[in-house]
Amino acid sequence: MQQRTEIANLGEFGLIEHLTKNFEIKNASTILSVGDDAAVIDHFGKQTVITTDMLVEGIHFDLMYTPLKHLGYKSVIVNLSDVYAMNAIPTQITISIAFSNRFSVEALSEFYEGVYAACEKYAVDLVGGDTTSSQKGFIISVTAIGEVAPDKYVQRSTAQQGDLICVSGNTGGAFLGLTLMQREKKIYLENPAIQPDLEGEDYIVGRLLKPEARKDIIEFFAANNIVPTAMMDVSDGISSEVLHLCKQSNVGCKIFEDKLPIDEKTRAAAFKFGLDPTVCALNGGEDYELIFTLKQEDYDKITLNEEIAVIGYMTALEEGNKLQTKGGNIFDITAQGWNAFT
Amino acid sequence: MQQRTEIANLGEFGLIEHLTKNFEIKNASTILSVGDDAAVIDHFGKQTVITTDMLVEGIHFDLMYTPLKHLGYKSVIVNLSDVYAMNAIPTQITISIAFSNRFSVEALSEFYEGVYAACEKYAVDLVGGDTTSSQKGFIISVTAIGEVAPDKYVQRSTAQQGDLICVSGNTGGAFLGLTLMQREKKIYLENPAIQPDLEGEDYIVGRLLKPEARKDIIEFFAANNIVPTAMMDVSDGISSEVLHLCKQSNVGCKIFEDKLPIDEKTRAAAFKFGLDPTVCALNGGEDYELIFTLKQEDYDKITLNEEIAVIGYMTALEEGNKLQTKGGNIFDITAQGWNAFT
Repeated sequence: MQQRTEIANLGEFGLIEHLTKNFEIKNASTILSVGDDAAVIDHFGKQTVITTDMLVEGIHFDLMYTPLKHLGYKSVIVNLSDVYAMNAIPTQITISIAFSNRFSVEALSEFYEGVYAACEKYAVDLVGGDTTSSQKGFIISVTAIGEVAPDKYVQRSTAQQGDLICVSGNTGGAFLGLTLMQREKKIYLENPAIQPDLEGEDYIVGRLLKPEARKDIIEFFAANNIVPTAMMDVSDGISSEVLHLCKQSNVGCKIFEDKLPIDEKTRAAAFKFGLDPTVCALNGGEDYELIFTLKQEDYDKITLNEEIAVIGYMTALEEGNKLQTKGGNIFDITAQGWNAFT
Repeated sequence: MQQRTEIANLGEFGLIEHLTKNFEIKNASTILSVGDDAAVIDHFGKQTVITTDMLVEGIHFDLMYTPLKHLGYKSVIVNLSDVYAMNAIPTQITISIAFSNRFSVEALSEFYEGVYAACEKYAVDLVGGDTTSSQKGFIISVTAIGEVAPDKYVQRSTAQQGDLICVSGNTGGAFLGLTLMQREKKIYLENPAIQPDLEGEDYIVGRLLKPEARKDIIEFFAANNIVPTAMMDVSDGISSEVLHLCKQSNVGCKIFEDKLPIDEKTRAAAFKFGLDPTVCALNGGEDYELIFTLKQEDYDKITLNEEIAVIGYMTALEEGNKLQTKGGNIFDITAQGWNAFT
């Protein structure tokens, strides 16, 4: 039988000590970590990048099919992804959680195992946070800190007409993972005797529950002397993000359906659910890939990286935001990204 | 009639734009602010201090007697207080909020007015955040960033035997403000026709609803070449904080009841409620004063500052943590600070 220890038995300070005892400092920039009023960081001449995200049970995740360890991992990843999207390297995080009394110390430890795994894999230090109670549900707020050489950071607003539009990895998979999990949840709620059927769907389920941040792409840029002209991470779908880049950079764009990077397993899952893979790749969220623009003369530098696809190019503002289909038709791109308020 | 605009009408990006449109950059260290994947900060050779806090409706605040503008202000202040407690100067904040659909755009604007007022008064830049929905209630997560000259930051763990224990301002007021508001709430719930009676209690109500962070004390330290040997802010009461300082510094302490700084209005309110002012000053939370230790030879430097009281001194670890009463009796100090989990 699983053990259940009540949070009240440990108290706030005991709980923090219990949850963070295995974390070790990995960065020279972490001067002072957990245990004081604040942490102290020294990026030694580099600039500091900071980003924050809040994840709310019932809005951003469903604990019915999200293991707490995966949730801890993903909470860190979504923030690291934002740091990489600045062309920076993450170095520290803080994490605050609020939870109702249905959570035990063991449940929180599981969540922190995921946080720990992400910190290990991406070599970031947990340097602070807050743990408190909530009236309902589990709420997570993560802040990630990173470093970047002065003036090497990449904004969203600096793409230029003629630049190539590139995407890392592939998209649409996380959305199909979500579609699958929601179907299985519905079946289970209607008949709890039926076990979930996830056979052969590891890939899309993994894309949803255990996303990774594209550290490798940022390292590839550094190794090959590439600085994108603009960049952001793909959290709400390619359509939504490309429109952000265009709007903030004052340019138009043309992207090509046949260039969209879609994994075979994502494509197969889309057909199984009767969905158009292109729509999933354009409008499905949570892939945490990078979308960036490059000067045309940098094209040769990326051709050997199979993890980077060129999906189109930036045009003049007045040409609008266009998608050319496989059949040669041209459509306006519209954002159907995820909205927490609807 | 008050206007009510639904959040869904603006969408997330429209909402962020609406809420942050009046915020202007005040710090040269803010290289890039709201609107990208992350903000960029350059502390130009100084070290970066970071702290974060989460505030949950029903746990940390009661909207029945907390105006949203005050809540926004206080959410910032409690974090700035942690930065000052490191002997650092706050420069940026990020703020994430989750709220249920009972909140309108107007309500959030009111909250942000308070955030804005705090940012203006303390010259900090709002550089990022997240706005999302919650299943229940209002949840706020603030992260504050500050800067400090290398090795000028002050920890909790570095007090030494013989050091003087000092407290800024006065304590116990916020707790009495809370006691008053809870009494008025109870009366109101029993009979909504009775208007709250807060006459003459502005001071303690202000201590609760509109606390300030002790920027002036940190500036006084800098101007007078004072570096405390240890410091933290008083959020859970003097008893709780002095025990933290002693435990983390491996020392004991002796404090004197007749040296505790208690405002006359706080004392009067305590008597009115039949409470011991000393207990309120020792165990009441949320005063956001600073508690710090000083080498004895620095005593002369603080005597002219009426906002600093010497309440005792650090002793050897084996002498324990003692309070000497006005009558000359000696008691052990025990922490009865606030606990979110009970």
